[in-house]
Amino acid sequence: MGRWEPGAPDRLQQAAIELFAERGFDATTVADIADRAGVTERTFFRHYADKREVLFAGEAELQSVFVDAVVHAPARASVIELVSTALETGCRALQDARDPEFPRIRNAIIAANQALQERELLKMSHLAGALTDALVAHGLDDLPARLAAELVVSVFITSFGSWIEVGETRDLVTIQRETLEVFRTLSR
Amino acid sequence: MGRWEPGAPDRLQQAAIELFAERGFDATTVADIADRAGVTERTFFRHYADKREVLFAGEAELQSVFVDAVVHAPARASVIELVSTALETGCRALQDARDPEFPRIRNAIIAANQALQERELLKMSHLAGALTDALVAHGLDDLPARLAAELVVSVFITSFGSWIEVGETRDLVTIQRETLEVFRTLSR
Repeated sequence: MGRWEPGAPDRLQQAAIELFAERGFDATTVADIADRAGVTERTFFRHYADKREVLFAGEAELQSVFVDAVVHAPARASVIELVSTALETGCRALQDARDPEFPRIRNAIIAANQALQERELLKMSHLAGALTDALVAHGLDDLPARLAAELVVSVFITSFGSWIEVGETRDLVTIQRETLEVFRTLSR
Repeated sequence: MGRWEPGAPDRLQQAAIELFAERGFDATTVADIADRAGVTERTFFRHYADKREVLFAGEAELQSVFVDAVVHAPARASVIELVSTALETGCRALQDARDPEFPRIRNAIIAANQALQERELLKMSHLAGALTDALVAHGLDDLPARLAAELVVSVFITSFGSWIEVGETRDLVTIQRETLEVFRTLSR
């Protein structure tokens, strides 16, 4: 085993994003990423299964934030309150973790590659599934739980897309609130 | 060029679905599919890019049905009327084309394979994108258009999932109406 590498996962992620942006995803190898981050390939594989997964680190953590918001919501919360609290908590965690620059570059990399787009959609589908389970555990019937989870994910994806647009000045939580409100007016 | 093969695409699709169900997707080759359908591999590749695409034939047609419903909706239709007419038209076309047995088997094949799940999600994402464009062309602003398109896709996926459940007796159009109604009560 190599020595302990403090900060290696973050350095690897930063190096990967830079290289994918410079050379394209397909033309970048794990060796390139490890080299740029100043670690061995072995260290890379200790943290990530492959170069694709570097772009999807943090998936489980983000899912937990959304799910925990539902788990800890008051027992008598209405469906729309559950939707709103999940969105509010998830978006706040994301905006506190990073400025929009990193996800903006990450998104451009993903948009350029169909396999990455598909993986990103799977991540969102997993989030919807986890939220459905949490909402059922909170007392909702299966169908309303599934639809409410889809609503959370739709508003999240749409708000996130606005947040990372060049020139957007609102923070993610504000965008999410306004987006959910537009959504609610639609279905009237 | 080989001789014209009437019905080859449908025969190939039927053969592929049977083989995927029997042996699994990964263990089935294009040669196996062509053989079962009684055509050459060359005929296979005249109709499908690869064995995965056999499962996604009809994607463009389904998208057109949803989009055309929006295009032909009355100019003064409300957002919820546009959502409803797209769903109604898309679901009717699908239920008229097939009984739920084929999509039920197809779904089981897709559920067993992550790459197929990702491709299916991409198909739904393309549908949302095409619907967004159609709704913008119909006069909606970008954000409401995107959210309304997401709503159509969410209700469609959920209704479709119910329709192909074993023991479900309602038709797809009925399920979709009831699902959209549940959705509308959620956001109140």
